[in-house]
Amino acid sequence: MYSVDELQRKVNDEIQYRINELTNKEPAELYAPVKYSLGMGGKRLRPVLLLLSYNLFSEDILNAMPAAVAIEVFHNFTLLHDDIMDNAMVRRNSPTVHIKFNENNAVLSGDVMAFLSYQYLMECKSGRILEVADLFTKTAVEVCEGQQYDLDFENRLDVSADEYLNMIRLKTAVLLACGLKAGAFLANTEDNLAEQLYDFGLNLGLAFQLQDDLLDTFGEQESFGKEIGGDIVANKKTYLLIKAFENASNEQLNELNYWIKQNDTEKEDKIRAVKRIYNQLGIREIAESKKEDYFKNSENILKNLPVEDDKKKQLQMISLQMLKRNH
Amino acid sequence: MYSVDELQRKVNDEIQYRINELTNKEPAELYAPVKYSLGMGGKRLRPVLLLLSYNLFSEDILNAMPAAVAIEVFHNFTLLHDDIMDNAMVRRNSPTVHIKFNENNAVLSGDVMAFLSYQYLMECKSGRILEVADLFTKTAVEVCEGQQYDLDFENRLDVSADEYLNMIRLKTAVLLACGLKAGAFLANTEDNLAEQLYDFGLNLGLAFQLQDDLLDTFGEQESFGKEIGGDIVANKKTYLLIKAFENASNEQLNELNYWIKQNDTEKEDKIRAVKRIYNQLGIREIAESKKEDYFKNSENILKNLPVEDDKKKQLQMISLQMLKRNH
Repeated sequence: MYSVDELQRKVNDEIQYRINELTNKEPAELYAPVKYSLGMGGKRLRPVLLLLSYNLFSEDILNAMPAAVAIEVFHNFTLLHDDIMDNAMVRRNSPTVHIKFNENNAVLSGDVMAFLSYQYLMECKSGRILEVADLFTKTAVEVCEGQQYDLDFENRLDVSADEYLNMIRLKTAVLLACGLKAGAFLANTEDNLAEQLYDFGLNLGLAFQLQDDLLDTFGEQESFGKEIGGDIVANKKTYLLIKAFENASNEQLNELNYWIKQNDTEKEDKIRAVKRIYNQLGIREIAESKKEDYFKNSENILKNLPVEDDKKKQLQMISLQMLKRNH
Repeated sequence: MYSVDELQRKVNDEIQYRINELTNKEPAELYAPVKYSLGMGGKRLRPVLLLLSYNLFSEDILNAMPAAVAIEVFHNFTLLHDDIMDNAMVRRNSPTVHIKFNENNAVLSGDVMAFLSYQYLMECKSGRILEVADLFTKTAVEVCEGQQYDLDFENRLDVSADEYLNMIRLKTAVLLACGLKAGAFLANTEDNLAEQLYDFGLNLGLAFQLQDDLLDTFGEQESFGKEIGGDIVANKKTYLLIKAFENASNEQLNELNYWIKQNDTEKEDKIRAVKRIYNQLGIREIAESKKEDYFKNSENILKNLPVEDDKKKQLQMISLQMLKRNH
């Protein structure tokens, strides 16, 4: 059984190896943004989760390593394209790809990353590789659907909490779940266990995204890697804003609507005003409590997984790290 | 053995069926551009070539139909993203996706088409589906490389004919070749036959792209589906322009360089002036002759393919249709 830290190091080494491999590939203009994107680091949670799941059932983690790389490359592809669509300038405290290079580079290098992720995935020698590829593809389609909902919500004021939770399930949670299930498939585990790991990932992913919403408004710039308050400035229909709309008095509603229309105003004024309303309504606590619900669900699913308790410890540890990172 | 026309109809029916399937999928904003793009029609050469190749060895073409759809969906994905990067307004006499919808739609709907193409591909039940998926992925990476070279060439004046031919091999020819080889794989044909069909496709594809260059300058707007002279206006380093640079006198060189710098001038003036130089230098004949070389290669490869002559007739016919479409 490997520890989270050991797997993290192995994933980092493997990704560095893959980045080096790309150095000699032509055309250089296509692969430079790929290397930049993969080299930005990040927590690389998805590959580590995949390997942790695999490692519940099998020790020879090198067999699953190409799939671990694949899911990280895929994740970075989505970031490249999302950053174009969201017109985001900063990611992990560095300029986004379409800013550092240009928009065409970000579109095309993103595309090639999507295909490289399949190339890496299919390196896995496993009797269930076709099932893994199908799961991966289904997940990729869902992630696109999630991003589309996210874009659609920008132009709507009537997004419900359920719609929002479905959106983050698609945009964020299914990829974590996919990694965990793929790890189980690659280790030739029984289907029902793979399914439980998928559900564990879904709940963990939902909690994780709710935390991301909380950090975007209440976090620290340095550790968050993006500009604090970006969601408020962009009128993102996060769980926080949706709950504020649900709970606001008429006066607070007018105030929220006023600020949502202020797109040319000083960012800081808008952030301060909306946060004040959030504080009046206890929005932080409401979102924390929803996040806690999902996290508890994930803990219970893991507890009930028919695997020795000792082996589950690393998955418990990474969940805690993911959910308590600003505590 | 099916005729080209029969397969064309079957492909059209199948794609229409897939478009209808997408009608109920949510979010509608994601799938509307996919349906629009697939519904624009086009010649659907790639799926027909795949089925013709399969049909050389096997009659039950329905087995290969999902792969045929996959390659057309993939091709349309590349058109969506290329049109963003090239800032193209018109495709098949209709507005391009990023004009008809918006740029975010074109990025994200393109992405989902890439994944839908894998979804369709993996529906094929074949003992060699993993090899087909690997070929498909390798080809997709190459198509991205080709597009990057094409973009790079925009900012260079020293592109050689060899560099250009390598670019169109990657951007256009490998996908036709991939379809032909995939058809052979799906029919469980011997590797060396699959390889010969790949080479047939490469040569046919190179001839086809050279013809596209010729049509862009010397064709008729109505049948071409794009604006005539677009390559000249955009200073595209086509085979025509590269050969003009190679063969130009000093005076003609100065004139070409003058017109390349004129980006705000009347389009018609620029097109007329560059065409005049092409005519002085016999560029049309030079390009036609190169196209003919590749076409002859493809004919010879097909002639030598160890398959009954009778069965090859449909592939011969579609090649002629592809290469003589403006005659």
